[in-house]
Amino acid sequence: MSNKLTLAMLQLPVGRDVSANVLRAVRSVKKLKADNPKLQLAILPESFNAPYSQEDFPKFAEPVPEGPTCQALSKLARELKIYIIGGSIVEREGDKLYNTCTVWAADGSLIGRHRKIHLFTMSIDPENAGGVEFDEAAVLTAGSEVTVVQIGQQKVGIGICHDKRFDELARIYRTMGCSMLVYPSAFCICQGPMHWELLQRARATDNQLFVVTCSPARDNMSGYVAYGHSMIVNPWAQVQREAGEGCEFIVEEIDFNMVEEVRRQIPIYKQRRTDVYSKVRSDL
Amino acid sequence: MSNKLTLAMLQLPVGRDVSANVLRAVRSVKKLKADNPKLQLAILPESFNAPYSQEDFPKFAEPVPEGPTCQALSKLARELKIYIIGGSIVEREGDKLYNTCTVWAADGSLIGRHRKIHLFTMSIDPENAGGVEFDEAAVLTAGSEVTVVQIGQQKVGIGICHDKRFDELARIYRTMGCSMLVYPSAFCICQGPMHWELLQRARATDNQLFVVTCSPARDNMSGYVAYGHSMIVNPWAQVQREAGEGCEFIVEEIDFNMVEEVRRQIPIYKQRRTDVYSKVRSDL
Repeated sequence: MSNKLTLAMLQLPVGRDVSANVLRAVRSVKKLKADNPKLQLAILPESFNAPYSQEDFPKFAEPVPEGPTCQALSKLARELKIYIIGGSIVEREGDKLYNTCTVWAADGSLIGRHRKIHLFTMSIDPENAGGVEFDEAAVLTAGSEVTVVQIGQQKVGIGICHDKRFDELARIYRTMGCSMLVYPSAFCICQGPMHWELLQRARATDNQLFVVTCSPARDNMSGYVAYGHSMIVNPWAQVQREAGEGCEFIVEEIDFNMVEEVRRQIPIYKQRRTDVYSKVRSDL
Repeated sequence: MSNKLTLAMLQLPVGRDVSANVLRAVRSVKKLKADNPKLQLAILPESFNAPYSQEDFPKFAEPVPEGPTCQALSKLARELKIYIIGGSIVEREGDKLYNTCTVWAADGSLIGRHRKIHLFTMSIDPENAGGVEFDEAAVLTAGSEVTVVQIGQQKVGIGICHDKRFDELARIYRTMGCSMLVYPSAFCICQGPMHWELLQRARATDNQLFVVTCSPARDNMSGYVAYGHSMIVNPWAQVQREAGEGCEFIVEEIDFNMVEEVRRQIPIYKQRRTDVYSKVRSDL
């Protein structure tokens, strides 16, 4: 039983034409699969089918799984017989909107729907050109479910962008048996240089698993400029692969034997003092 | 009311003569205070009074606070009217030994006694010259209490070395109101390059507080070679000060206004979804 998985991260550009964005994603995955027959999993960026913009969220929202973007991903997974972690789209259900990642099995079935749990609300030096001000909570509803999917032999925990900042979510995924976390993400260029790699390496070393992020390509002309730097960090907390800023596709074989190796050599999960933590927490 | 604190980290060499080690620490703190009249807090390394060695732990153990090392630190704090975070020593109580950090107020009173909660037990490539094999648990008893001390206006959480690997302890300290964590530490040169800075920056960014480590100076001739690189990381997760490998003293003014600034601009603590975490944890 192989403990390896070949995945692709697609750091795609995102324009204002939804159909064109989806078509580019579909064609790119097909090309990658043709060039890499061993490819088993394709990962798309957060907000890969439409601009990441508070104003635009309602305009581009689609139902899951009936909407055209989901249908395209389902068909693609089925045709290529691969898993797809479909970055994120704005999902409409009734009068509510969510930032949602769909996960598709190799038979085209929907095996995961992660609604971003931690909405991105932040104001860093908004007066300043290098700052950021954003408030997803003004438009979106937060999800309230954690999402673990089975991909081949692996349990994979899903988060979206800001979810990555929350160590407690990652710890829950570790406890649920995950060997990889995938965060489709669109960090801004303000937070990116400070914390993008750090957070990913922190989750990897604290939980001793692979952590994969997939960002849109940087577009300095867009209203919200994504950082890029899609990345695979291994359980030793080493950056195994890293994209630059532009449109870039990375194909990588992941060897999950490393997960067991790290957990054996640095047995911190077993060494946790849950007796102490729970005693103190109950007093707080 | 000042929100600043001037502290010193003493990256001291540690030899086999306990009295000489303690005397060197005392003289060094006195010299630093004479040169820096604003100095309010001195921080010593883990195992600053004796070699860090499983075999030697019983030999160098002392009662707390009656032993000579504690008495020297108490006197020093009182004389200089400064706080001292006394790195760590091996504490003997009855037939048990602990790796213990004592904290002294400016009147010489003991205000904190942290017994290392997470004992260091690890085996990374022990056959290899770059590997490490250590088992504190074979000789020491683990502490079962978290330790928060009041230093000036600040609440400070204490951990020792391996305690730094456990994000849940740091999160508890954050919840208890800490604005700084101090970890006297002696990472080995195997773990140091991989994880020393990463772990410290991870705790700082996840909990938005200052994190300070203080290591013994590196001695390539000793049985256990400490990494050095005593470090101050600020709440933006930037390395504010870092020592090299040798004997080195760093004096730094900490501005705790930065804690509030970061917490206001990236309000992740308020954004935590404790509703989701507790629901899932209760199912696990």
